[in-house]
Amino acid sequence: MTNIQEIARLAGVSTTTVSRVINQHPYVNEAKRKEILKIIERLDYVPNSNAKSLKEGMTRIIGVLTGTYTTLSTSFIQAFNTSANKHGFNVMLFITNGDRQQELIALEMLRSKQLDALICLFRTNEWKVIESYTKYGPIVTWQRLVSDTIPSVFMDHYKGYTLGLEYLYAKGYRRIANVFSSKGLNTPERVRSYHDFADKYQLKANSFPDFHDKLTIYDGEEVARWWIGQNDRPDAIACSNDNVAAGLLTELRRAGFSAPGDVGILGFDNTELAHLLDLTTIHYPANKQAENAFYIILDMLGQPAPEVHTLEFELIERKST
Amino acid sequence: MTNIQEIARLAGVSTTTVSRVINQHPYVNEAKRKEILKIIERLDYVPNSNAKSLKEGMTRIIGVLTGTYTTLSTSFIQAFNTSANKHGFNVMLFITNGDRQQELIALEMLRSKQLDALICLFRTNEWKVIESYTKYGPIVTWQRLVSDTIPSVFMDHYKGYTLGLEYLYAKGYRRIANVFSSKGLNTPERVRSYHDFADKYQLKANSFPDFHDKLTIYDGEEVARWWIGQNDRPDAIACSNDNVAAGLLTELRRAGFSAPGDVGILGFDNTELAHLLDLTTIHYPANKQAENAFYIILDMLGQPAPEVHTLEFELIERKST
Repeated sequence: MTNIQEIARLAGVSTTTVSRVINQHPYVNEAKRKEILKIIERLDYVPNSNAKSLKEGMTRIIGVLTGTYTTLSTSFIQAFNTSANKHGFNVMLFITNGDRQQELIALEMLRSKQLDALICLFRTNEWKVIESYTKYGPIVTWQRLVSDTIPSVFMDHYKGYTLGLEYLYAKGYRRIANVFSSKGLNTPERVRSYHDFADKYQLKANSFPDFHDKLTIYDGEEVARWWIGQNDRPDAIACSNDNVAAGLLTELRRAGFSAPGDVGILGFDNTELAHLLDLTTIHYPANKQAENAFYIILDMLGQPAPEVHTLEFELIERKST
Repeated sequence: MTNIQEIARLAGVSTTTVSRVINQHPYVNEAKRKEILKIIERLDYVPNSNAKSLKEGMTRIIGVLTGTYTTLSTSFIQAFNTSANKHGFNVMLFITNGDRQQELIALEMLRSKQLDALICLFRTNEWKVIESYTKYGPIVTWQRLVSDTIPSVFMDHYKGYTLGLEYLYAKGYRRIANVFSSKGLNTPERVRSYHDFADKYQLKANSFPDFHDKLTIYDGEEVARWWIGQNDRPDAIACSNDNVAAGLLTELRRAGFSAPGDVGILGFDNTELAHLLDLTTIHYPANKQAENAFYIILDMLGQPAPEVHTLEFELIERKST
């Protein structure tokens, strides 16, 4: 197997010089650099992709920064990955769990050209820190951000949530409880959406305490037990996502209740769970957002890129309302 | 640029103490720790992780090689990530989609010490290629492999599947259909398990054609439609995983059938879906496998490691059989 020593021997240089060329450090004589690259290519030196990327100045690897896994982030990452693969790019995922250092490692890899670009699903460092890296390569985000240097593919959750609430109203629901997730920046928009909705239809008197930080099937079951325990019950529950709606529905069924017979249930996201349990939900095109993020990156890398999709939330009526 | 010496000077401590605080080692006076963190924040100091890793000879980053996402691989990766974080390691995920080059990039990062170790959930290159990298750092796999150099945390799916079949037999089921996934190396073991089981109880005459390549909720729905269309129906269906079992159950319900009233349904994995739909299933402790994989890596890196878990499949009886 070809190694760096062999390349150094053939080029009549030190292994350090070869290594410098491979890692794109400066301070290597241009003629030497070309000669070494030629040898690397001739010997088909193992990191083919490195040799290839040296030639075109790209690694064709895009970093994905995520905090942790959720159903939706997984769906985003899968779609981003598929789209990247289709255009000859690979994906490296950094699961930061909110660790600043781990995020900086990815940013530093962008700086040292080990990554061509970064997509930031979640961030821990201040935006100004992240922005300071945009001079090294494209950074695109999924988070709600208005920035000159970091394009965002975020969608307007005020609009999405309002779509769901107006649908519930049209179906005759007036006593609506809200279950929010508190991760991310979309929750305040959804809270604002409900407040405006309740004002518009003068529903303040019918209000229930909001739930917060509810994300999982188990959280949905907890909401179901709360609902069962009330004398004065909501007639509909708007959920933070389909996981919560699914747990809510199945726990109600275990106790002999049904939806929409006893209470209307509205999910959010339109994941597989909504399909599985025939949940009315809001379609959230995270996969198309992911494609848009990739197209924006492609364009910023100076490559021909497809046009970005126009994205809209969409109400999917099934059988839980 | 701020460096560790400057922080040490301002805090009136040694650089070792600053380094301990940065790396979250214990044995630092709490008041000192807070003071140092305050200085770090004030100076907006970003520790140079490269310098840090050079000193201790480790990057504290472990690469995870996966083909694509499945419910189970996601659960494995999450657990591995949690375990790694708990011990001060971070995770970098390579989604290879079966691309040899992308896999080699991870292996080359192990060689160049950018990664301390690799966990291989899935591989595309020949094992001998992957084995040639074990001299650069620990490589552990989730795949069925017996190797001197690459430890595996695989479990015996012959045993797991037999557990499910014996349970179905004990419940009185005799006409069992099998739905297999064909990804990975576990399916042949499950097929062998059913053959031996059918031999043992002389059930050959009751056999139904096997399903293969069935993985998703939608695949389960397809199996349901097949079942509905038969004159001569199986009385139980052993599924490749809980996704298939869930799709099967809900599609049967849509058509007015029930489980176990009309047919027994057995899942596999014991994921959230099995909980959600009260599916009888086989608990597959992928999260404990992931912890074991991490503990083995820790040990191979010469770090103190917890003892590995003894792992067993377990039958979880719920309401679908």
